[in-house]
Amino acid sequence: MQVFDAVKERRSVRRYRERPVEEAKLRKVLEAARLAPSAGNHQPWKFVVVLDEAKRRALARAAQNQTFVAEAPVVIAACATKTDHIMANGQHCYPIDVAIAIDHMTLAAVEEGLGTCWIGAFSEPQVKKILAVPDEVRVVALLALGYPHPGARTSKRKSLDEIVCYETFQ
Amino acid sequence: MQVFDAVKERRSVRRYRERPVEEAKLRKVLEAARLAPSAGNHQPWKFVVVLDEAKRRALARAAQNQTFVAEAPVVIAACATKTDHIMANGQHCYPIDVAIAIDHMTLAAVEEGLGTCWIGAFSEPQVKKILAVPDEVRVVALLALGYPHPGARTSKRKSLDEIVCYETFQ
Repeated sequence: MQVFDAVKERRSVRRYRERPVEEAKLRKVLEAARLAPSAGNHQPWKFVVVLDEAKRRALARAAQNQTFVAEAPVVIAACATKTDHIMANGQHCYPIDVAIAIDHMTLAAVEEGLGTCWIGAFSEPQVKKILAVPDEVRVVALLALGYPHPGARTSKRKSLDEIVCYETFQ
Repeated sequence: MQVFDAVKERRSVRRYRERPVEEAKLRKVLEAARLAPSAGNHQPWKFVVVLDEAKRRALARAAQNQTFVAEAPVVIAACATKTDHIMANGQHCYPIDVAIAIDHMTLAAVEEGLGTCWIGAFSEPQVKKILAVPDEVRVVALLALGYPHPGARTSKRKSLDEIVCYETFQ
């Protein structure tokens, strides 16, 4: 699948089939994260892959009872393992680095016929407890992954003219 | 080009040809950013496209004199226009949202035969002055864009075993 087609076809999928994700496909998605760039090539990430149903249910409860989190056959907790790296522009590297890796996964997933959904609405302390994540590690996002039910909606986007300007901010 | 091939072929390109980027290709790259997901679909971004050579030279100076920033025929300043949105996990949305859009651009660029480089090492006050970016807006990253000279190096990555674990953090 062409990159641009994957960009166009990607949806936030909140309804999943029961069908499990094949090991080879999961591995391909994780490999896309592995190859992602990061500031100073620090690769400050760890991905906790959750297949266990009881754990997925617990994660769903920790994610404001969004039940689709448990329905997805795979939930990946994307963690930042190094959080003290500040860029010269004054910003933390880790949310950006981990976001790049997750975005790589979302597009690779489309190519594999899979759907994903970024989840930021969760209690980090609860998720850390469920997955035994150490204190110094941050859970940046959860990613639901699985075969989508057809019909996920497209969200509207602003026009290019609204989000692009030339030479100076306008 | 397949998504996974784009993921594999993407490099941080720090040497560019003088050849300008065709308008249609630049538009395709920006369109990939436009279609990116964001928390609550707020699309909290604005992309300042800099083609002017004097401005690119000024940006290179603001980016710790990384001269390749001026050599790239296009520099895109990826700005966050809404910075007060905090996710339930306690983290700011804007670095993640803008990173997603930039990552979309880096992969779409590979498909167009273009190279990119994320730049985080810059003085944000200087960049904001050069591009007339309002106080309340953050410049999350600069992205160099252009036709690459061949031979950009691959960075090594950790193995999957080092970055992936199952069911609990390990």
